[in-house]
Amino acid sequence: MAKTAVKSRASAAKKSPAKRPVAKKAAPKAAKFVYLFGEVEAAQRYAKTWDGVRSLLGGKGANLADMTRAGLPVPPGFTVTTEACNAFLAAGEKFPPGMWEQEVAALRAVEKLAGKKFGDAKNPLLVSCRSGAKFSMPGMMDTVLNIGLNNEVAEGMIKLTGNERFVYDAYRRLVQMYGTVVLNVADEPFEEVLEHHREKHGVANDADLPAEDLKAITEEFKAIVLKYAGIPFPEDPLKQLELATTAVFKSWNGKRAFDYRKAAGIPHDLGTGVNIVTMVFGNMGNSSGTGVATTRNVSDGSKELEGDFLINAQGEDVVAGIRQTLPIAEMKNAMPKVYAQFAKIAKQLEKHYRDVQDVEFTIERGKLWMLQTRDAKRTAQAAIRIAVDLADEKLITRTEAVKRVSPDHIDYFLHPQFLASAKKAGQQIATGLNVSPGAAVGQLAFDADTAERLAHKEKKAVIMVRPETKPDDVHGMLAAKGILTSRGGRTSHAALVARQFGKPAVVGVLTMDVDVENRKLTTKEGVVLTEGDWVSIDGTTGQVFAGQIEAVVPDFNDPYLIKLLKWADGIRKLEVWANADYPRDAERARMYGAQGIGLCRTEHMFFETERLPYVQAMILAKTPEDRAAPLAKLLPFQRDDFAGLFKAMDGLPVTIRLIDPPLHEFLPSHTDLLRTVVEAETLIAAREREHKALTNMLSKRQKMFDAVEAVRQAAYENAAPVSPDLPKREEQEADFKAIEARIAEIEKVNAAAVKKLEGDKHMLAAVEGMHEQNPMLGLRGVRLGIHMPELTRMQVRAIFEAACDCAKAGVDVHPKIMIPLTAHSNELKVQQGVLEEEAKLVMAEKKIKIDYMFGTMIEIPRAALVADKIAEYAQFFSFGTNDLTQTTFGISRDDAETGFLMEYLDKAILAENPFASIDQVGVGKLMKMGVDLGRQTRPSLDVGICGEHGGDPKTIGFCHKIGLNYVSCSPFRVPIARLAAAHAALGDAADHR
Amino acid sequence: MAKTAVKSRASAAKKSPAKRPVAKKAAPKAAKFVYLFGEVEAAQRYAKTWDGVRSLLGGKGANLADMTRAGLPVPPGFTVTTEACNAFLAAGEKFPPGMWEQEVAALRAVEKLAGKKFGDAKNPLLVSCRSGAKFSMPGMMDTVLNIGLNNEVAEGMIKLTGNERFVYDAYRRLVQMYGTVVLNVADEPFEEVLEHHREKHGVANDADLPAEDLKAITEEFKAIVLKYAGIPFPEDPLKQLELATTAVFKSWNGKRAFDYRKAAGIPHDLGTGVNIVTMVFGNMGNSSGTGVATTRNVSDGSKELEGDFLINAQGEDVVAGIRQTLPIAEMKNAMPKVYAQFAKIAKQLEKHYRDVQDVEFTIERGKLWMLQTRDAKRTAQAAIRIAVDLADEKLITRTEAVKRVSPDHIDYFLHPQFLASAKKAGQQIATGLNVSPGAAVGQLAFDADTAERLAHKEKKAVIMVRPETKPDDVHGMLAAKGILTSRGGRTSHAALVARQFGKPAVVGVLTMDVDVENRKLTTKEGVVLTEGDWVSIDGTTGQVFAGQIEAVVPDFNDPYLIKLLKWADGIRKLEVWANADYPRDAERARMYGAQGIGLCRTEHMFFETERLPYVQAMILAKTPEDRAAPLAKLLPFQRDDFAGLFKAMDGLPVTIRLIDPPLHEFLPSHTDLLRTVVEAETLIAAREREHKALTNMLSKRQKMFDAVEAVRQAAYENAAPVSPDLPKREEQEADFKAIEARIAEIEKVNAAAVKKLEGDKHMLAAVEGMHEQNPMLGLRGVRLGIHMPELTRMQVRAIFEAACDCAKAGVDVHPKIMIPLTAHSNELKVQQGVLEEEAKLVMAEKKIKIDYMFGTMIEIPRAALVADKIAEYAQFFSFGTNDLTQTTFGISRDDAETGFLMEYLDKAILAENPFASIDQVGVGKLMKMGVDLGRQTRPSLDVGICGEHGGDPKTIGFCHKIGLNYVSCSPFRVPIARLAAAHAALGDAADHR
Repeated sequence: MAKTAVKSRASAAKKSPAKRPVAKKAAPKAAKFVYLFGEVEAAQRYAKTWDGVRSLLGGKGANLADMTRAGLPVPPGFTVTTEACNAFLAAGEKFPPGMWEQEVAALRAVEKLAGKKFGDAKNPLLVSCRSGAKFSMPGMMDTVLNIGLNNEVAEGMIKLTGNERFVYDAYRRLVQMYGTVVLNVADEPFEEVLEHHREKHGVANDADLPAEDLKAITEEFKAIVLKYAGIPFPEDPLKQLELATTAVFKSWNGKRAFDYRKAAGIPHDLGTGVNIVTMVFGNMGNSSGTGVATTRNVSDGSKELEGDFLINAQGEDVVAGIRQTLPIAEMKNAMPKVYAQFAKIAKQLEKHYRDVQDVEFTIERGKLWMLQTRDAKRTAQAAIRIAVDLADEKLITRTEAVKRVSPDHIDYFLHPQFLASAKKAGQQIATGLNVSPGAAVGQLAFDADTAERLAHKEKKAVIMVRPETKPDDVHGMLAAKGILTSRGGRTSHAALVARQFGKPAVVGVLTMDVDVENRKLTTKEGVVLTEGDWVSIDGTTGQVFAGQIEAVVPDFNDPYLIKLLKWADGIRKLEVWANADYPRDAERARMYGAQGIGLCRTEHMFFETERLPYVQAMILAKTPEDRAAPLAKLLPFQRDDFAGLFKAMDGLPVTIRLIDPPLHEFLPSHTDLLRTVVEAETLIAAREREHKALTNMLSKRQKMFDAVEAVRQAAYENAAPVSPDLPKREEQEADFKAIEARIAEIEKVNAAAVKKLEGDKHMLAAVEGMHEQNPMLGLRGVRLGIHMPELTRMQVRAIFEAACDCAKAGVDVHPKIMIPLTAHSNELKVQQGVLEEEAKLVMAEKKIKIDYMFGTMIEIPRAALVADKIAEYAQFFSFGTNDLTQTTFGISRDDAETGFLMEYLDKAILAENPFASIDQVGVGKLMKMGVDLGRQTRPSLDVGICGEHGGDPKTIGFCHKIGLNYVSCSPFRVPIARLAAAHAALGDAADHR
Repeated sequence: MAKTAVKSRASAAKKSPAKRPVAKKAAPKAAKFVYLFGEVEAAQRYAKTWDGVRSLLGGKGANLADMTRAGLPVPPGFTVTTEACNAFLAAGEKFPPGMWEQEVAALRAVEKLAGKKFGDAKNPLLVSCRSGAKFSMPGMMDTVLNIGLNNEVAEGMIKLTGNERFVYDAYRRLVQMYGTVVLNVADEPFEEVLEHHREKHGVANDADLPAEDLKAITEEFKAIVLKYAGIPFPEDPLKQLELATTAVFKSWNGKRAFDYRKAAGIPHDLGTGVNIVTMVFGNMGNSSGTGVATTRNVSDGSKELEGDFLINAQGEDVVAGIRQTLPIAEMKNAMPKVYAQFAKIAKQLEKHYRDVQDVEFTIERGKLWMLQTRDAKRTAQAAIRIAVDLADEKLITRTEAVKRVSPDHIDYFLHPQFLASAKKAGQQIATGLNVSPGAAVGQLAFDADTAERLAHKEKKAVIMVRPETKPDDVHGMLAAKGILTSRGGRTSHAALVARQFGKPAVVGVLTMDVDVENRKLTTKEGVVLTEGDWVSIDGTTGQVFAGQIEAVVPDFNDPYLIKLLKWADGIRKLEVWANADYPRDAERARMYGAQGIGLCRTEHMFFETERLPYVQAMILAKTPEDRAAPLAKLLPFQRDDFAGLFKAMDGLPVTIRLIDPPLHEFLPSHTDLLRTVVEAETLIAAREREHKALTNMLSKRQKMFDAVEAVRQAAYENAAPVSPDLPKREEQEADFKAIEARIAEIEKVNAAAVKKLEGDKHMLAAVEGMHEQNPMLGLRGVRLGIHMPELTRMQVRAIFEAACDCAKAGVDVHPKIMIPLTAHSNELKVQQGVLEEEAKLVMAEKKIKIDYMFGTMIEIPRAALVADKIAEYAQFFSFGTNDLTQTTFGISRDDAETGFLMEYLDKAILAENPFASIDQVGVGKLMKMGVDLGRQTRPSLDVGICGEHGGDPKTIGFCHKIGLNYVSCSPFRVPIARLAAAHAALGDAADHR
């Protein structure tokens, strides 16, 4: 079996190079392939820039050389360049001419620096051989430690250190790494040997094995190498070094590394450097030790050294977690001098690299050695505080601080989050689309009314679960902590409403069946949850968990965040507005820094329970006259809505879009109605049949009754005894009455059913009459306004009545009226006429003048194509990129995001979901045309974006590039947009870390 | 009442000028405003071109002058120019300075030429005053005849002519025209007077009134003028002339004329000329006469004079049809000399104007006077023959002949037509969309099977009527003579299929209710037709008639047409291809001159009855493995289809589009299924309740039975007599059995129903699973091919197997494989991979190589926007303008054409239906981008169009302009396209007469 393992690894290794691109850079003739750590100046001369040095030596090698230059205690060593690696790979895995000689020469120089000799049993130098590419690829490439050990050297070292266990442990590690890394032998045979020895001694850890076992193990490992790789472990230290170098080079094209680069977008032709470093040992007694640390706290960003530390241990031990590590602060007590030196170095490194560093170090018999330094990874919270602190400390500029924080970092502050530690394995029951970020925990409610009741009456935390949501469900969604649906895409109703209200939501969980009738949720794996069961949903990741998971809400009032966003505001050119339908949203948006309302969707107001009947009456009206009454009822509602918005946005623009969606969205669903009607029709007919049968039966029963009673009567008349068997009169009568009662019941039920059916059929006919094959391309937007000018008139009146009233009350109002779905300039012309007439009328009535603007959405390709003509009427444009993407791509977002679009992303036909981030090449081209043509006609044209994309950082970068004036996004994304707009202005939107 | 009539006319006249544009051209200082007919050279010097002369003098004036120049007998006269008219209107209805003096001077010149004097009772000159604009606007403007008559002149004329009746008839006409035309008095009071006199004499015609009555009438008419207009009839002839001139000028801006120009696209700033012509009288005895004629037969184009002629009559009489006219040939006998002169003039005019002329003439006492000539209107058939004949006679060039025939003329030859004379009033019962031209007469059939049965078994002519059609209905549509639907738009299934097969069709007849269940069609007006009733539908006009109307089928083998199209072929640059799915269509297309197949819709083949089950099995398959078997069944069908096409198009390209529509189109309708399922569920439950009730009843009945029988038994045992009233045992048993039988029936019926329900629910679930909100933007086209590569593979295999087999049999095959609905180049990349692999496989199997091309539809805006990237893979483009219009405009064609789009056309928001003729500004811009970007990448790129627009002449003009290689249209439109393409090449596509 182990044999097979070797073969398969070997053959995989053989196969792989053929499939992968070979680096094309040829090595320069008589090139310098090896740089001592002390030769950083030479490297910099050759590579010109520090980035060039990192390319040449790899990140690790460059930083080790850099620290050496800075006088920090780095163990002597050298780097074989990435150019050597590329030359090696290009030449069919042969060292380029001169390289090996340079490597040996460098080794000799290191011997001098270290005062030890490689392979010399009396004073042996051991080295490690580590990979190090330009970009960190942790664990993806190979490392060999303790090179330089052989039997003779081992014996010599024992004499020197007096520590046989230490020496053989190092020796057996060398042989093992040599076998697995250099010769591709599988791990299993080595592990089997170790296990055998542990069993023999009844110990759990290799560290507890006695020295003689380690010595034996070293020999057994050598046998394994010979057996599986067919060649002996080389006792010649130089041979060891040569082969280790070869192995590191080859590992650049290993499958793991290749896949990692592909995923991380790292070019395949960079190559890796090889770092040969003098081994230092932290496990040489209590004056030795090892640790890793960051120069500041990378969890919260506070200014304190943070890390782990072990006395008398090797680096591996810290990472492996075999021994309980100590906090770095303990070092202060244990090794005060070394700690002071280390703390000073940490400061020095931060200053040098202008960022928080993640360092590795070892103390060998009281001497501190720095083994690595690199920019530290950090949490979102820490990233923001560190960036602000570094700027305040003048280590970086404020602009740099802004650049160092990514929009995702800010996203973190806007939604509660599950603690990663709290997510337990096995709890996760499904994954869906992560459409609205944040964590939510609650008890399942299967409909909106239940959700509202549980939340408001019973004060419970609720997660509302539905197959999909409808406008009717909004009150339940508002009452719920989070929303979970089995269907729908990134821009489904559930997703839109959830984002609008900042409710965490996971939608399109296709592996989950939601049985509303039976209040039951079943996953593919058979987990069944019912109403009231606890679930936790992570809208940031799309995960769904059974049970309760602890969530924490980060504080948006974080002073660092506020400071940073202020700096961002000073940089950005784009204004950031918000999409808000209600005053409460507008207030939130303003708190988050919005400079205006870019989209108020008036139709959302129509869905509210008290208004819907009027909306339906308006829709079902056959003539403008019949429509007048329900419109009059709606007017005050709308006016109040708008007045609230104007007050909330006092002094800022408020863009109100006239009604957009197809009217049938306000009517009951066709399927439900059809079901009701067919059921009623069928039942009515069945009851009629039953009625007939019962009537028939009643007459038969009457005959029988008469016959029996005749018998009784005859007996009575004859004074004869009545047979006791003769059916009793009262029994018969009861029988009779039961039938009669049923007949009466049928008549009553059917009469009611027929009446109800009439109404339902009327509604069904209306819904069918309004049915459209492709409602997204149907009677909606401006088309509705043209079809029902009285609807436009009512909305415009509501806007102007509210604006005039507010203005009189001292509010500074700036209404912008926006027409949706324009495709032709004549549509605007017609609507503008209606609008101006009504506006003038209201202003005359109210005796006050309001400054307002008239504009349009650009969300139909044709509108962008003829934007020059559209701009003859429109004073502003706002790109409705949801619809524009839909039509430009010919993709229905409602259908595609749970369908073929996901397949396209899986199959990499599309690199990105065009509904999440704008398709710059296609849709973006139209947008650019729209902006350019529009401004050609009207140079002062204001142009914004109010589609879902308005909150996407990449899209914001694009909007900046094509010269938009503002982006408008959901209130919760306003802070993100502020930062993204600043990044865009810095020409660097894509470079987020 | 009559008073009101005057007022309303007057106020209408007052209102109109304000609303209409006033001509902006200012009259030149000291301009020449009046040209005698003899001054045509001067006019031409001033106006530069003949077109300029027509602009200056109007068509009538120019031609009268032209005829005068040619020495033809034209009554002396002159023209007041259109410039004068414009100056008059611009100056607030005042003659420009000098004009009136010029007019009077011209009148004096005419007096000399005529040898009569205006207003001279002894030798009076009478003149007419007629409008005459550049473009003929028949009946739209004003005319006043017999100017120059007053009491004194009338008396003088009576002396001269000895014909009092003639003179007073002329006089009363002058007064009447003066009143109505110049002074805007209503017609009614004049008519009342005439009627009064007719009644008095008991005659039907004014012509039968005696002279004294006409004299009295003249006076009564004058009284009417005074009463209603408030001013007396001017006895001064010069005043008459002045006011008549004014009236004609003003009539340019009359409502009728304004509306006509708007409808006909004639600019409003041209103005009208005023022609003052010496009156000649055809009613001065038997040597006088009048007539109208065309220089050739304008019905069939044959070379013979054609027209109407009356002896001793006035022009009005010919037009009014009061007297039976004589054919023009009769003139030969009646007035041989005049006829000879007239025939000669006719030839002369044709030669001069290079076209067939429509002339008016009068013979006054043996002298022929030409009163008008203009290009004659003609039928389609005549237009073609005349154009060809004129070219053959060298009167015009072949190019001119091609230009003179319009695509509509050719359309005529492709479809049977109702004779206009055969359409009787009252027969028309409705109007719908005229989606597929031609006339069809047949008996109503309410479903496809009935249509097929009636047509094939009973050999009846059938019109299939449906609410709308589905793919299942195609066999019925093919069997029918025509198709009639109450729903659906210009590109509904019914419309598409009808055009495809050249079946006349009227769809979207919204005023018609089609009750399939009761085989009954009801119109809004209450006309009810049932199955088997005769109807006639006119797909050219959209009219629907009850009963049979005579139709004639023009001959497509018309030698003139064939000749003309050959000439057109020599001119055009665009190739003309055809959309054809079946070999029979391809053959027809080829016969009509198609140079290739531009679109074969493979999915149409899937709808055929024998294939549909396999198609459904393929769709319902859950895995590619399950899909293999039904696909294997479909392969031979498709291969045979393609082989047939290749054979029919031997030597020409055949473009085969892979499957396009969403799959649910192949499944039963959701509504029907839901209805079935709900009905079944409800009935099953009802039957279960009945079953329970009956079982319960049975047990009660059992008790009763037992009781009664116990009584009987007791009587028997006691040997007592049984009461005769006691229910009979057999009666009771029958009762029993009936209940038991019903129970058994329920069990049986329910068992079957449950089983059927299971299948229906399965299908319903499948249909619901496949449901899309906007299927037009859903899983279709290339998305299907990517989702089910095995489907692409099957289609490609079928194409290549057919092509290889055909090639081996000596057929010259040129397959072009076309991918629908591409939006991203990666889609093509993926499909091309699948395609090439399969193609190579088949060619290897068949051991033959086929040249083929791989291309794509451009029908999604994004595809046009990134056409440069698409062309990296596609070797040809074909614009799918139905879909491209749909997405670019954001309009669902299925919904809009019976909905808001019609409203948009009504309200003139759109000038034209963008699904009928390409929207050049919007969609066209995208097309141009597509062509230019595509050729940027691949200069050799072939680009065509295969949407419905491909057969539209205007669109063809546009396609020519943007450099397409070919247009592809339905076979029936190929001849039209050939001509339209020639027009396009002549840069003159829009100038159809």
